[in-house]
Amino acid sequence: MGRNSDAKQRIIDSATELFHSRSYANVGVQEICEKANVKKGSFYHFFPSKRDLTLNVIDHVWLYYNQQSAVAKAFDKDVPPLKRIERFFLGSCEFQSQLQKEKGKVCGCHFGNLASEISSQDEIIRKKLDAIFSAQADVIEETLEEAVAVGDLPEIDTKATADAILAFMQGIILMAKTRNDARLMKKMAKAGVDMLLRSD
Amino acid sequence: MGRNSDAKQRIIDSATELFHSRSYANVGVQEICEKANVKKGSFYHFFPSKRDLTLNVIDHVWLYYNQQSAVAKAFDKDVPPLKRIERFFLGSCEFQSQLQKEKGKVCGCHFGNLASEISSQDEIIRKKLDAIFSAQADVIEETLEEAVAVGDLPEIDTKATADAILAFMQGIILMAKTRNDARLMKKMAKAGVDMLLRSD
Repeated sequence: MGRNSDAKQRIIDSATELFHSRSYANVGVQEICEKANVKKGSFYHFFPSKRDLTLNVIDHVWLYYNQQSAVAKAFDKDVPPLKRIERFFLGSCEFQSQLQKEKGKVCGCHFGNLASEISSQDEIIRKKLDAIFSAQADVIEETLEEAVAVGDLPEIDTKATADAILAFMQGIILMAKTRNDARLMKKMAKAGVDMLLRSD
Repeated sequence: MGRNSDAKQRIIDSATELFHSRSYANVGVQEICEKANVKKGSFYHFFPSKRDLTLNVIDHVWLYYNQQSAVAKAFDKDVPPLKRIERFFLGSCEFQSQLQKEKGKVCGCHFGNLASEISSQDEIIRKKLDAIFSAQADVIEETLEEAVAVGDLPEIDTKATADAILAFMQGIILMAKTRNDARLMKKMAKAGVDMLLRSD
């Protein structure tokens, strides 16, 4: 069990890293196995298909996101609601800056990259990513509802605004990737937060 | 000349369509040639590499964007500046909705898709897409400057806000692609425009 589950996790770790640095279609099973130091036969023992591996990669990143990422604690309830939104933006900016230092380039959001590349091609992966974005938007929506309740925001469509904030975050990361400069994210995020906080 | 340039344009058209429906790495030169009804040998007569073809595809889409797309006229100078921003959002939403009807799925933005997939892998394509996003942001920035000048917006960092608006638009399109529903874009865009227009 120990060795097997190690191998499975090594495959997931390798695929996570390779998909993120390059793209889904550009990375083959052979290369993932080589990086993970696992034989190709073992790969298909753990994963019936590359899609199945990808669903595992998404779960793996989602777990990291919720437990260890720079944004994991952004939504702590003891922080005032709008401050949480700001921490969400700053945490994401910090995470991308840190990754740029490690990898020498801006690789973007694991979820956003896969969503952009695969959504129109694979309905099962698309639905999984959609569910993750929805879960993220739900947390933002609850936060906005609190901000409205305490009078920090006027009455707004909290669901549409939460979706818009998440979309904005994804767009910022895509722009940082296209410019290969994570520092630009902070300026964009600030402009966005200023827009949001500019209350009536 | 006539036949040759027809073949070249057919290759560009086919690649534009295939990259958009699927992704860059998922589409091979062989398939592009088959769709274009051009022999593979001719392909390399016109394009030394898939990258070179892709640079041509980007130019082709950029020309369409500026001359024929639903957003091409969004920034007409005879429209009040903030109304232009709104038209930019609505035009993009309309364009994605129209494409969803034609293709039966939301395929996203040609530029955004390529930027997400290739930016961390190909510096030449990344720079070309970066230049296009910068040109788009410049138009938005000029528009915001006009809005500030006529008093429709408070003094803001127009450059950062223009970048933020473009990022937001890209994020909205990515979310619509992930949800495979272009109709959701309008709600998000409205929430974003409301944020922007909610002046001090």
